[in-house]
Amino acid sequence: MPPRIEPAELLERRRQLLDIAAKKGADAGVVLFGPRGVFHASNFGFIPTERPLALVIAASGETRLLVPSLEREHAEAMAFVDEVREYLDYPGERHPMQFLKDMLGPGTWAADSNGYGARYGYQGPSLSDLIDRDVPVLAEDLRVLWQVKSPAEVRLVEEASTWGNLAHSRLQQYSRAGANEYDVAMRASHEATQACVDTLGREYAKQCPYPLEAFALFRGQVGANSAQPHATTIHAIMRPGDVLVTGASGRVWGYGSELERTMFVGEPSAEQRRFFDIMLAAQDAALDAIRPGQPVSVVDRAARRVFEDAGVTKYMRHHTGHALGVDIHESPFFDVGDATEMKPGMVFSVEPGLYVPGLGGFRHSDTAVVTEDGHRRLTLYPRDLASLICG
Amino acid sequence: MPPRIEPAELLERRRQLLDIAAKKGADAGVVLFGPRGVFHASNFGFIPTERPLALVIAASGETRLLVPSLEREHAEAMAFVDEVREYLDYPGERHPMQFLKDMLGPGTWAADSNGYGARYGYQGPSLSDLIDRDVPVLAEDLRVLWQVKSPAEVRLVEEASTWGNLAHSRLQQYSRAGANEYDVAMRASHEATQACVDTLGREYAKQCPYPLEAFALFRGQVGANSAQPHATTIHAIMRPGDVLVTGASGRVWGYGSELERTMFVGEPSAEQRRFFDIMLAAQDAALDAIRPGQPVSVVDRAARRVFEDAGVTKYMRHHTGHALGVDIHESPFFDVGDATEMKPGMVFSVEPGLYVPGLGGFRHSDTAVVTEDGHRRLTLYPRDLASLICG
Repeated sequence: MPPRIEPAELLERRRQLLDIAAKKGADAGVVLFGPRGVFHASNFGFIPTERPLALVIAASGETRLLVPSLEREHAEAMAFVDEVREYLDYPGERHPMQFLKDMLGPGTWAADSNGYGARYGYQGPSLSDLIDRDVPVLAEDLRVLWQVKSPAEVRLVEEASTWGNLAHSRLQQYSRAGANEYDVAMRASHEATQACVDTLGREYAKQCPYPLEAFALFRGQVGANSAQPHATTIHAIMRPGDVLVTGASGRVWGYGSELERTMFVGEPSAEQRRFFDIMLAAQDAALDAIRPGQPVSVVDRAARRVFEDAGVTKYMRHHTGHALGVDIHESPFFDVGDATEMKPGMVFSVEPGLYVPGLGGFRHSDTAVVTEDGHRRLTLYPRDLASLICG
Repeated sequence: MPPRIEPAELLERRRQLLDIAAKKGADAGVVLFGPRGVFHASNFGFIPTERPLALVIAASGETRLLVPSLEREHAEAMAFVDEVREYLDYPGERHPMQFLKDMLGPGTWAADSNGYGARYGYQGPSLSDLIDRDVPVLAEDLRVLWQVKSPAEVRLVEEASTWGNLAHSRLQQYSRAGANEYDVAMRASHEATQACVDTLGREYAKQCPYPLEAFALFRGQVGANSAQPHATTIHAIMRPGDVLVTGASGRVWGYGSELERTMFVGEPSAEQRRFFDIMLAAQDAALDAIRPGQPVSVVDRAARRVFEDAGVTKYMRHHTGHALGVDIHESPFFDVGDATEMKPGMVFSVEPGLYVPGLGGFRHSDTAVVTEDGHRRLTLYPRDLASLICG
């Protein structure tokens, strides 16, 4: 049976939400506006626009979803809720938030934010103004609630990793001198996504809250440009001696993985090898430092220590990693300034990097889950230099 | 010379921002956190994450950008500012907002929002708490400021439309019975983007604040599923008699276009023709109703009148259109509830639609700019039924 989040898990999540809300004095229930929270509590994935959408979880457990009309069938097919209600469109002759008001009984309601977010020109009242009551905001509680993934969630990230690996294999296979960055990335992503859908099945794909997907790309990190860790293609043409810094991800049933590798077009120079080796040692140190009960900052410190010992801290441009799962970045962060305690079930990227002007960028990223006694890597793609030479 | 937004236009935009801020009592200047506002005032396009980024426009006109280190070279290459400052990462041992505080002199600062937005687990102080002063929030003023596009902006949307048209041509060309929705969309998008980059030039592409891009797709709107106006692929296989509802867009120098068509795999049925004709008449009526000085609601009413006369309002799922330009949706909206006055230079999608369960969806969308005496259509793709039969 293909992996998914079962209704029993959703009901348990809602119970946790209602408990949190009750502790903040919200006796009526919880209203969720954000896509992360709505998905977490209902299996409904949506792309937020100026058209407000809200999930209402009453203290009784009864759960209703308000959507714009164009999401009606989508919501009816995907959302695990007792009722879907709709309004035609935003702004409308009657503001969508008035339809929400109709759905809220008396008492105190908590929410993920005090009103729908300002996207694409949306304007509207705060929830507290709408119902003329104080609204306890649970943003911080939700952030923490999402940090520890359930076994079903970890299973989905692992399944996603498999398809990210395939996309990355194709990316490596097509990378060679003369190849166009964008062309290689599109071909690899197209083929891997099609293979993922063909393997898991179109019926399964249709039941997924977000599209099944696998992609691999370079984000402009080709040759000297690989020293710029930013995130968009420059349509580079690969040349012998180029460093390539990749990014690959799968997405299965709304859950994603992260896999990044430093590759070379042909043989690397001695200087490139040196930075590759330091980066790999830093990633090893970071992985080794993952342990429940420790603060996440120790992982960043472990990687930094390798960079300090090698005298290369000036080439750092970011910390060592971030949690992930549904959003591409989640909290906590492998950062010297984050004191959150690691717990089994937290899922992280592990990706210390070095960016050397004129020479290239050096970064692997792996997705790892915190276990009872350390970590388990979910992205099983070769990390050694010899395996990462292309063309 | 390829189109772009010149520094003189940015300086004028900043002057407008400072004027608006001064009227709200902000004598020190303006702080912008959101990607739409930062791009508008600096030509710097970025993908927002949990790492805060802020553009500071002092009353003197001096403009500084604060970025996380991994955006440093990107910002230095792209942003039209006097200085780029950086912090290593979020959360860091010193919170990024403290680096922002260092950049703000005394006096009252206005902002697009009172602090950086809550994305991907970001937490931080509001700007008013950070500087211990009231912060006038200009969100509503900015929304209005962005509504009327300059000639250079309209030129960019028009250029984008050209490439959206190419992507759509390829999409139509590859659509036939037996074809896979996703495969057709990826192939069309890949080829059109490559043609766009090859034509406009890789050097130009590198100077663009966002990637050059052209895509065309179906979002699952194939056959009976075309009656569901939602936005993700279902990897449908096309069959004879299917209605196809498409979406295509170009993006040039950060500006985008929107083009959507109702197509058929082979000959449509009489019932499909009937809904197609009503939809086309509604789009004609909407386009005819575009006229400066009128409220935007008249355009939605004109389309609805056609649907009312044909007795098909129960198949409506959304209003008639939205402004666009940098964001895929902007305000105002062609909606009965929007009283904003149309002005020359406003750019809209015009897209009344009908969604008939079991039969299919019927929607064209064109991008049009309001002119002195009506409108000019920017997406020049055939709209008649005979031109939209595939396979």
